[in-house]
Formats: sequence, structure tokens, C-alpha cells
Amino acid sequence: MKDTSVSHSDLRGLPADKVRAAIRSGDYAGHTAGLAAGKLQCNLAILPEVYALDFLRFCQRNPKPCPLVGVGDTGDPMLPTLGRDIDIRTDVPKYRVFKDGVMAAEVTDITDIWQDDLVTVALGCSFTFENALLRNDIPVRHIDTGRNVPMYRSNIDLTPAGPFAGQMVVTMRPIPQAQVEEARQISARFPQAHGAPIATGDPADIGIADLSQPDWGDAVEIKPGEVPVYWACGVTPQNVLLAAKLPLCITHSPGHMLISDVAEDAETTILKPE
Amino acid sequence: MKDTSVSHSDLRGLPADKVRAAIRSGDYAGHTAGLAAGKLQCNLAILPEVYALDFLRFCQRNPKPCPLVGVGDTGDPMLPTLGRDIDIRTDVPKYRVFKDGVMAAEVTDITDIWQDDLVTVALGCSFTFENALLRNDIPVRHIDTGRNVPMYRSNIDLTPAGPFAGQMVVTMRPIPQAQVEEARQISARFPQAHGAPIATGDPADIGIADLSQPDWGDAVEIKPGEVPVYWACGVTPQNVLLAAKLPLCITHSPGHMLISDVAEDAETTILKPE
Repeated sequence: MKDTSVSHSDLRGLPADKVRAAIRSGDYAGHTAGLAAGKLQCNLAILPEVYALDFLRFCQRNPKPCPLVGVGDTGDPMLPTLGRDIDIRTDVPKYRVFKDGVMAAEVTDITDIWQDDLVTVALGCSFTFENALLRNDIPVRHIDTGRNVPMYRSNIDLTPAGPFAGQMVVTMRPIPQAQVEEARQISARFPQAHGAPIATGDPADIGIADLSQPDWGDAVEIKPGEVPVYWACGVTPQNVLLAAKLPLCITHSPGHMLISDVAEDAETTILKPE
Repeated sequence: MKDTSVSHSDLRGLPADKVRAAIRSGDYAGHTAGLAAGKLQCNLAILPEVYALDFLRFCQRNPKPCPLVGVGDTGDPMLPTLGRDIDIRTDVPKYRVFKDGVMAAEVTDITDIWQDDLVTVALGCSFTFENALLRNDIPVRHIDTGRNVPMYRSNIDLTPAGPFAGQMVVTMRPIPQAQVEEARQISARFPQAHGAPIATGDPADIGIADLSQPDWGDAVEIKPGEVPVYWACGVTPQNVLLAAKLPLCITHSPGHMLISDVAEDAETTILKPE
């Protein structure tokens, strides 16, 4: 583990490249919520090339939980389409390393374990549409109360590809009834970040027994007049990767995302070469 | 070649599955413009699995000319995410078969040359946003005059992946000045079909010497008060595939597209399993 000397509040308001520099140097290894405002943040999956074609097919077939925003060349740790000088071995605050589907380590740098056959896949994350909801005065309970978003296993089957299959993980945000349609329209503008909700209302409809018992994250209160609204969640691909028991697979640690240079509202997630 | 006994006008107004049935049986081998209204039509690239990962990376990095809408399993000719019972060996009216970058044959059925290592990649096409322009009373000159859309090689560099690289091919449609912004907004709603224009105005800005001399298709008149508007074109990936001189590569013939069951305005291009 790096010795971390910079706090989250020190980084607030800094541009993406400065935040990544603090992460790369080892000065910061915390979560990235609220940092580099306006820039797309990414879920991360790094896996051996032999699995990459099937994983890209899986993401293409399940675009709501797995919105593809960047793919690296085999063995190349740089991600030029997502940002200037992004080195995926050092530029994420915290990584989880899985072997045969079991977590083997949580680290702040993967330079030592990088291999020539690894392919980096970056997927959009919910920060993007949450920021848009907040900008439009739609409350986001877990942010307002300083918690992690509640996540649930649903019974919604994913479209399989090769060894990758399973059910969708969803997040839940309670939205005032009168704002549900607006929340749908706003999030639908961000297909690179899970897009429109996948369900609203009764959790039993999508196989969730008890909203007060999330599978990950923290339960949040649903106030009178609010409706639970469910979005596809970036934990889905992580779960699917683990279930496939790849010999090696590296992800970000929850909340510790890759910060890109791509604007959240860009038409595509691909930066032009300089 | 199949003996074709059904005309384009016989098929107008029929649902997608009936049109595909006429194509599969060999009764129809013509172009698909205006057929199965409201359904997404697709550009097609079929290539050996060994090139598929790089080609998917190429499409992900160049989403405007190469909007990925479906990918088949290796060796499997069925495309369940795009439609019921789509067999890519028989359900496209006309195919072009390329060997080492040279056209070897134009055929109406590829059952005899299908291989266990082939991967089908389907990409969105401009019919989708043209239909939306027409519905909004924005004129589309080449359709109004019964011509093929004019296509031009531009100097816009593509983002390379493996053996795939080159410059973007663009289409041009003259749009009345007062409707250019509306045309932009309408086409931007269809990222699965090339999205918003990539340029407007002076052709020299994107390396086109003479609009009256298209590289493919037919020149169209630009009337006083109209502005040339350029969109990314689905000929781009075909060109790039040919330049890569793959030992085998199969595409649709121009205008002879795969008709899917996916609604043109669907949030994603992935059908749910039945």
C-alpha cells in the first residue's frame, strides 16, 4: 500500500489530470465520488486477452449494466481514447485482484502484476447520471445521507456470452413520485452511464425480497410519496467476471474509479488524438 | 444467384419477419430501403475470429462510423439479440465476399462458405436517421430524387486498432440553413445510426475536393440556401476491412441490409430473450 498524504477534500475542484497525478504518485488512494466534476468516471475490468472477445460480446449484449466506454490494446496499459497519459497500472486509487474467482489482494498499484496479455475494459458508472439528477434538483438519498448506494441482486437474466452469464445487479434510489418521469428522462440521456431505469415500484417484480437488506451498500429510507427506482449497476460485470472464475482478473475497488478526461455529456466517450 | 420472383413494392408494408422470409427463400434479392419501416437495418461485417477482438475494439473507438448493434457467437450464424430466427447465412438479400482484400464474389446466400470460426458484426445504418428526418419534414435530397446517397473519402483519421485504420468515409445531405440545427438534434438521438453530423459547410475542411464528384453513390444538387451536412458513413468499416486484406471477409452489398426486429427508437439494440 502506498502512503497516502492527500485527502479527498484537498482534491475537490482540481482537474482530472491533477487528481490522477495524485493517485499515480501514491499520495491519494481514496474514493473518487465528487472529484473531477463533469468528467466521466469508469468501472474497470482487466482480463487476459483469451477472454476479452467474449467479455466485449457480453458488454455489447448487456449495455445497461455494462456500458462500454473504452478498451485498451492487448498488453498496453495506456488508454488514449479516455484521457491524456492514463496508465491503468497506477492511475486508479485502489484495485482488487482476483484469481480463480477469489479475491487475492487489494492494492493501489498493479505495475508488478501487469502482463503482456492483459486487456483493459472501462465501463461507465452511475456517478454521471447522479450528478445530472442533482443538477436538476432531484434528490439522491444515499448522497444526501452520506451513504453508499444500496445494491441488490435481481432476477433479471443477462444475455450470456461465452463463460459470462448471470443476473443483473441493480441500484435503488427513492424518487418523489412527481419526479420519477423527469428522473427517467434525465438518466436516459446517459447511455454511457446505465441510461434510463430498468424498473420502478414493487421490488418483488424484479426478484428483490426486502429493500431494507441490500446485497451491497447501505439501506436508505423511502419516504412517503417516494417510489423506489431501479437502475442497472456496474457491480453486474464484476459479479459475472468472478462467477466465470478467470485465472486472473483485476477490477477497481468499489467507489475507487478511473477518472477520465471525457466530458460526462460528450456525444461519444472517445477522445480525438492530439 | 437465387431466382427472384418478388418485387420491392410487393414487400412494402410487410413486417420484418415476412421480408426476411422472402429474402431467405430466395424470392427477393433487392435493396432494403423503405422496407420494414420502423425497424433498425444493419451494415454487416463477417470475419474470422482471430480478427474479431481488434475489429470490435476498432468499432468501439470509432462509434460514429461504426455503431456496434450486434455481435454473433463464433461460428454461430444466428443473431438472437437482433431478431427472431435471424440466420445471417441466408437472411441478407445480397453479400459481397472478399479474399485478401479483393472482391471474389457477390452472392445471395453464404451457407456454402460459412465457417466455424466466423464472427458476425452488425453496425447501424443511416436509414434510421433519414427516416427520422423525413418524419420531421426535413428534406433528404437523394431520396427525393431517387438516387443513392453521395459518399466521400474524408481526411478525418480513424482511431486505429490492430490492423484496422484509415480515414472516415462520410455521406453528404444538403439541408436548408434554417433546418440544420434541427437535423443535428434529430440525428443525435440515434447514436446506433451514426448520430449527429460530423461536419457542416465547406467540404475542404474535411478534405473533400469536389462535392460533384463523390467517391461512391450519386452527386446531388445543393440549392440556394442549403448547407452541405456530413455524417459518418457505414462504408468506413468496409473500406477499413478491405485495406486490412483479411484472408476472408463478407459484407452486405451496398443498400442490401440486414433487417432486424429492433425498433429504430429503442433505448438499446438488444432484444430480450423470449
